[in-house]
Amino acid sequence: MSLLIVGSVAFDAIETPFGKTDKIIGGAASYISLAASYFTQKSKLVAVVGEDFPAAFINHLQAKGVDTEGLQIKKGEKSFFWSGKYHTDMNSRDTLITELNVLADFDPIIPDSYQDCEYLMLGNLTPAIQQLVINRLTKRPKLIVMDTMNFWMEIALDDLKNTLKMVDVLTINDEEARQLSGEYSLVKAAAKIREMGPKYLIIKKGENGALLFHGKEVFFAPALPLEEVFDPTGAGDTFAGGFIGYLAKTGDISFENMKNAIIFGSAMASFCVEKFGTERIVELQEEELQHRIAAFRNLVKFNLASV
Amino acid sequence: MSLLIVGSVAFDAIETPFGKTDKIIGGAASYISLAASYFTQKSKLVAVVGEDFPAAFINHLQAKGVDTEGLQIKKGEKSFFWSGKYHTDMNSRDTLITELNVLADFDPIIPDSYQDCEYLMLGNLTPAIQQLVINRLTKRPKLIVMDTMNFWMEIALDDLKNTLKMVDVLTINDEEARQLSGEYSLVKAAAKIREMGPKYLIIKKGENGALLFHGKEVFFAPALPLEEVFDPTGAGDTFAGGFIGYLAKTGDISFENMKNAIIFGSAMASFCVEKFGTERIVELQEEELQHRIAAFRNLVKFNLASV
Repeated sequence: MSLLIVGSVAFDAIETPFGKTDKIIGGAASYISLAASYFTQKSKLVAVVGEDFPAAFINHLQAKGVDTEGLQIKKGEKSFFWSGKYHTDMNSRDTLITELNVLADFDPIIPDSYQDCEYLMLGNLTPAIQQLVINRLTKRPKLIVMDTMNFWMEIALDDLKNTLKMVDVLTINDEEARQLSGEYSLVKAAAKIREMGPKYLIIKKGENGALLFHGKEVFFAPALPLEEVFDPTGAGDTFAGGFIGYLAKTGDISFENMKNAIIFGSAMASFCVEKFGTERIVELQEEELQHRIAAFRNLVKFNLASV
Repeated sequence: MSLLIVGSVAFDAIETPFGKTDKIIGGAASYISLAASYFTQKSKLVAVVGEDFPAAFINHLQAKGVDTEGLQIKKGEKSFFWSGKYHTDMNSRDTLITELNVLADFDPIIPDSYQDCEYLMLGNLTPAIQQLVINRLTKRPKLIVMDTMNFWMEIALDDLKNTLKMVDVLTINDEEARQLSGEYSLVKAAAKIREMGPKYLIIKKGENGALLFHGKEVFFAPALPLEEVFDPTGAGDTFAGGFIGYLAKTGDISFENMKNAIIFGSAMASFCVEKFGTERIVELQEEELQHRIAAFRNLVKFNLASV
């Protein structure tokens, strides 16, 4: 079933304890689109880039089955650029440069051919823009998943709360869940955040896995312990892309199937961090993905049938 | 099968974001003994306290089936005392007071009746003392599990490395694993640490669960997301007590059974943090434990049989 992806397509320059890059492809929607493409060829992208953005990457997305009719290319303007440096523990980072460029006045125009989308993935963006996208859809999608970050909690909390009322699933990290709810316990934080709107909450914990909360239920998916953790950039977006891609492929939004979607999202994210930027997920083999899903199954399997 | 437990039995005074205590019962071996008592009534304690230590707690341990013949009570001396304050995130803490008292010249005397022990749990102590205990046993136990901490890596690294050569299982936290190995990736860190001696390595990640490494295998047990996380003190010791208690009960030290032991250790630790000190694990009902084991099973269960 068709999937609408909205978010940034941009340039990043990244420094981690293991190396640094020049300008490379970045942006939430780049990661989401790539990750989702391993599950569905019916995704449609809404984003904006400048004239400086490489056609090769856009062509690559198209070859992966991503519809780019909604990708605006602004003549004479520059793409969004972010540069950051990770600390030694890679769980935190400093932003060195943020150049909004085309993102400063992004107007998310939805092509008519996108109006039938059943799944909507709102990558991290200004909450007002995320809300605008929902309002511009003539029919509410079957499932709206939204990602956000602490930055918006600090400068646009009211907008964020208004947008939260309109979505089904929110994905945020553990620190952000604590910040948004004012609760230390993630169980209590999840309850408070779900009162704000989303019936499902995914709390991402990076190398410590992810939690899915719904009703009185909770599911935990670990992150795979990896030999190489090279660059965490885009891991959360890649997770989200795998998650919603799998849901769009299967057309099943039950809690049970969301668990599976989280395992696929986690598997995609485990690839993402092994190299800089999108390098590892640009071309992934089906066998690699299958192999990693099997590793997830083994990782948490225990045979304590009764006690 | 019989279990020898060596470690501190002491007083703690604790401050967390949720409250503070006066002097309460603490010490690694207190937590280990209590946790193990839910699985085996054949444990034997070697520790030292001062005259100030409450007989009521010693009586309680005895009532729980813990042999305290090896618990030395030093007349006219005071018990080890530690006081600490947790930061808001509860993942780090400051030590406010450390009074070694009787622990300063602890001579771990092993009663003759303890010499047949098949399981040995070395709670966190000076590595030289841990080694002395092993050397004083006439027969090597079937399984030696050792806990340690970063403090010994800083002031007694050579002793620590010598002791590591003599044990089967090491339990440390993720930061300590990185410090001891000099590797950021926990997979690489685990490989390096296992080259130092222990065939099995358990990396404890607090609210983020625990990893068990052995050969090319890895198992992950999550921590249960809890409504109330009140005081993390002793959680690692409680985990270790549940882990080795279950192994001693079942007599099975295969990798598969160690997975189960980790689930029981994690379940015990999940109780420990819900109240201050040993309060929650002093008297636990069998049904509570069963209920929590079921919660662990549900938490990680997904039905992705094939992909």
